[in-house]
Amino acid sequence: MSDGVFAIAMTLLVFNIQIPDLADIKTGADFHNKMQEQVPHIFSWLLSFAILCRLWLTHNHLMSDHTSKSASFTSWNFLLLGAVAFTPFPAGLLGEYPDQTWSVILLSITYAVAALSIAGMWCIAPNRASAGARRVVLISLVMLLTSISASLLAALNPFWGLILWIVYVLGIAPLAHFLERYVFRGGDKIEGE
Amino acid sequence: MSDGVFAIAMTLLVFNIQIPDLADIKTGADFHNKMQEQVPHIFSWLLSFAILCRLWLTHNHLMSDHTSKSASFTSWNFLLLGAVAFTPFPAGLLGEYPDQTWSVILLSITYAVAALSIAGMWCIAPNRASAGARRVVLISLVMLLTSISASLLAALNPFWGLILWIVYVLGIAPLAHFLERYVFRGGDKIEGE
Amino acid sequence: MSDGVFAIAMTLLVFNIQIPDLADIKTGADFHNKMQEQVPHIFSWLLSFAILCRLWLTHNHLMSDHTSKSASFTSWNFLLLGAVAFTPFPAGLLGEYPDQTWSVILLSITYAVAALSIAGMWCIAPNRASAGARRVVLISLVMLLTSISASLLAALNPFWGLILWIVYVLGIAPLAHFLERYVFRGGDKIEGE
Amino acid sequence: MSDGVFAIAMTLLVFNIQIPDLADIKTGADFHNKMQEQVPHIFSWLLSFAILCRLWLTHNHLMSDHTSKSASFTSWNFLLLGAVAFTPFPAGLLGEYPDQTWSVILLSITYAVAALSIAGMWCIAPNRASAGARRVVLISLVMLLTSISASLLAALNPFWGLILWIVYVLGIAPLAHFLERYVFRGGDKIEGE
Repeated sequence: MSDGVFAIAMTLLVFNIQIPDLADIKTGADFHNKMQEQVPHIFSWLLSFAILCRLWLTHNHLMSDHTSKSASFTSWNFLLLGAVAFTPFPAGLLGEYPDQTWSVILLSITYAVAALSIAGMWCIAPNRASAGARRVVLISLVMLLTSISASLLAALNPFWGLILWIVYVLGIAPLAHFLERYVFRGGDKIEGE
Repeated sequence: MSDGVFAIAMTLLVFNIQIPDLADIKTGADFHNKMQEQVPHIFSWLLSFAILCRLWLTHNHLMSDHTSKSASFTSWNFLLLGAVAFTPFPAGLLGEYPDQTWSVILLSITYAVAALSIAGMWCIAPNRASAGARRVVLISLVMLLTSISASLLAALNPFWGLILWIVYVLGIAPLAHFLERYVFRGGDKIEGE
Repeated sequence: MSDGVFAIAMTLLVFNIQIPDLADIKTGADFHNKMQEQVPHIFSWLLSFAILCRLWLTHNHLMSDHTSKSASFTSWNFLLLGAVAFTPFPAGLLGEYPDQTWSVILLSITYAVAALSIAGMWCIAPNRASAGARRVVLISLVMLLTSISASLLAALNPFWGLILWIVYVLGIAPLAHFLERYVFRGGDKIEGE
Repeated sequence: MSDGVFAIAMTLLVFNIQIPDLADIKTGADFHNKMQEQVPHIFSWLLSFAILCRLWLTHNHLMSDHTSKSASFTSWNFLLLGAVAFTPFPAGLLGEYPDQTWSVILLSITYAVAALSIAGMWCIAPNRASAGARRVVLISLVMLLTSISASLLAALNPFWGLILWIVYVLGIAPLAHFLERYVFRGGDKIEGE
């Protein structure tokens, strides 16, 4: 249950960052001002998330319920969890302001950090030479590329950025299947069992 | 803890979809207008839920804490989890507007998707011929039938739809017990232990 | 992760039940009226909680990650989880209205249901004759008695009910320790290992 | 799933404590008054958290899914989980009022309690003589010292307290690495495997 309490507290922290209300926002400048008001909240989230990560690590050592991973692997994993736990904020922002450039860019940055973390974990994973792990890193590079392209497209027109993400969601599963079958053949289990 | 952070972020996404306030709603037309305002939020939820599902799958391959399931089985499972994570929204809508046809229909659709996913998982499960698995699929078909009937009844009168769901909740446990004892006898463990 | 999504969705359902705002409430009668407005929400929570319980059971059979427990044991456990998941509502109500009789009574009823479920699970548990299990049931009977007494005291004066709960919280750990050491001796592990 | 429902209900309890609204607060005195209004909520959170901890312990004995820990170890762990579950409140307060002394002090007290619990768990842990466990307790003492110093600094100027926490977050990982390599050499696994 300890892990659950940590996971929930770390994820709920993001709910202190408020999505500005539609009624208060008339122009793009209002949107920027309202977002700047959330900067201390984002800083507070970052600080407490980092402290809880460290605390969980120490707690975990005493409980010794889990197998040890290397320190660098754990750091990349915490970066990934940070991006995942942060997701409800940009997703809520996008739902409220789908026509704002920064909604799409913030969502894309969040997923770019997640994709980078996966790639970082891969660099350290002991099984990184296996066909399965090479497939994992290729898919996360596709995600990173989608994030960067979606940010650039959103700078021109937010809807194009969104469309790229929809293409990603629809296309990534067939792509993963294709890679598994024809490019990196290695059974459907990563560990080479 | 990683799984927990993913599960929580994916479930909390649905809380960005706001239940329209009772004070703002006077007629059925107001209700429809307010619901349409939530369409971008529902789209944003779908997009982020799908991306997080994919990310979890990739992450899980690197962590290799879990036994591999086939890709189709995982897809059906994600559809089920999507329906489950979505539940707080139609449940909240029903609590606020129990007399609105669409509250009952949206709840029923959510559970229909869940029942369909269970049936889909059954089609692929390696143990689908066992008595236990046949019982599972029959119960999920009863749930699917209840969902469809409750939607149709709600179109006439929302309360009839609700009564059907109450009948389902009260009747499904005895039905499962009856099936287990007299129809598909196969011990009380699915795996045939 | 599936278990996590179910657990979170089931617990978050209770957040659709709103704690009436302090500003709107002047008299005890206002409090009752506001609480009655939450009745459809409580009904909706009950309905969706019950459906999700059933769905999880079916899903669990297909995934077969868990050891099977008997159907009655699972039912008592779901009743317990329902009481636990409901806790944030009476706890929030108590924080907002510590001087209202019904805040204390609702909190006490919630814990009475939890204590009853533990007792119900004990009746079916295969290891119920062991010293450890007899200790568990005695402690849950103390909790049930506290709930009933606190409800009765709160009907006279809500603060007396609260004080009884504080006595319970402070006294139950020493009581459990005393029972373990002098009354039901059976090692500190329930299973008699 | 039972553990998940307990963990979530215990963590969500803290969301009944409301962060005072920026618009209502003009002076430090307003801030104190608004915080005092939250005292019953904090009391209600403490009460329900303690009751749920006890309930989980009893439930866990009946389910016997977990290995038994000693009663004192569990108590320290519950104190830690309480501090962790409480975190979203001071973190939200800090995000809303980064310039208020009490925001930083409350955050520091929360982490001081967490660090103390880790130290308390260490005193009882059977493997406390190992190099790894000595490292854990040293890191938690650094955290405790940071909490106390940050509180004192915040009494002079809240921003200095924050800067100390930032230094902690940036410096603790290199410190842990240094201790592991040069001071308490004991492999990178605590259990001495």
